[in-house]
Amino acid sequence: MEEKEISQAVIGRLPRYFRYLGELKDEGVERISSQDLSELMKVTASQIRQDFNNFGGFGQQGYGYNVEYLYDEIGKILGLNRRHNFIIVGAGNLGRALGNYMNFERRGFIFKGMFDRDPELVGKCVRGVEIMPMEKLNSFVRENDIDIAVLTIPKAGAEAAAEQLVQNGIKAIWNFAHVDLNVPEGIQVENVHLSDSLMKLSYNIDRYENEQAGK
Amino acid sequence: MEEKEISQAVIGRLPRYFRYLGELKDEGVERISSQDLSELMKVTASQIRQDFNNFGGFGQQGYGYNVEYLYDEIGKILGLNRRHNFIIVGAGNLGRALGNYMNFERRGFIFKGMFDRDPELVGKCVRGVEIMPMEKLNSFVRENDIDIAVLTIPKAGAEAAAEQLVQNGIKAIWNFAHVDLNVPEGIQVENVHLSDSLMKLSYNIDRYENEQAGK
Repeated sequence: MEEKEISQAVIGRLPRYFRYLGELKDEGVERISSQDLSELMKVTASQIRQDFNNFGGFGQQGYGYNVEYLYDEIGKILGLNRRHNFIIVGAGNLGRALGNYMNFERRGFIFKGMFDRDPELVGKCVRGVEIMPMEKLNSFVRENDIDIAVLTIPKAGAEAAAEQLVQNGIKAIWNFAHVDLNVPEGIQVENVHLSDSLMKLSYNIDRYENEQAGK
Repeated sequence: MEEKEISQAVIGRLPRYFRYLGELKDEGVERISSQDLSELMKVTASQIRQDFNNFGGFGQQGYGYNVEYLYDEIGKILGLNRRHNFIIVGAGNLGRALGNYMNFERRGFIFKGMFDRDPELVGKCVRGVEIMPMEKLNSFVRENDIDIAVLTIPKAGAEAAAEQLVQNGIKAIWNFAHVDLNVPEGIQVENVHLSDSLMKLSYNIDRYENEQAGK
């Protein structure tokens, strides 16, 4: 594949293609046209073609796309053919929910460790992984080839935890704390601000009601 | 405010402005220039001005923006000055994590009820809200002025639950199930596909490593 900068907007859409193609594959569908994929996914066919052209187009259009090939290729682009070890920092409900989510394993994300400052939680297990005290975080990250840290702790401790993780060689942070982290260049951060999407929902409820009321 | 269609991309950025302005307000900052806001939020000043121009611009630029006014106005646009009652369908770890999140209340989202099909969970409480059996869902939604349903159940049951909710008058679904829901026009859906953002992270780790390796 040629090296060129691909926009984060395009990258952000790849996982959804990957999900749909995985389902088509599971259903035994072998080929699909951009038109049919467009109807299924409710995006325009031209958007699909434009997105795919960033990666060379993925095969002839007249015949449609080969579902399995496309699924595999997008998986590779997303790095899902490689293993990424991850830990979860914060063993509250959200941390435990993510630890219990089996599908990550299928995608190559291997749950290796969990940390919490609460002595009540330390020693308990989530899906076979023991909750360890924060004091063990640094050495664990260094010694277990951990790529990704999932931050599910309150805002107050998040910056300090992120700094500690970076110093010990973490490559990426999946951040659920309600704060935008400052990390050095080269450290990947994906923020999940859950309430942001709830606010968007609230906006859309009101907008629709105002439209209906003719306001 | 004039009625015009504002893109979902702009709407999607409003909660982040709202978060930053809330913090500035808490710190006692009264005015901020688009330049300073730009540096703080790491977006261009022209992006900020463009976004705000969708809503009339929010005041003079030479003097900077009035933080509290801007915070309040964006809050109103997001519908946060209104109350929205919500229920959570699915009382697993993720559902409980969302039920326990106090900040929703501050934004006008009131946690009214929780439902699960597991008899072991029924009768237990999450932040004072009792977990009810699924059989009570329909009547509860109808009788308690519920706007929003949070779906934290597995994919298999999500479509059926969504249909049931829509039939009983729900206005919006905040969907954590790993499936894109088909709902009638006018029902707002916001999907949170958590693994999508993990895949994006994985892509960015690999891209950076390839760049560093000069590939």
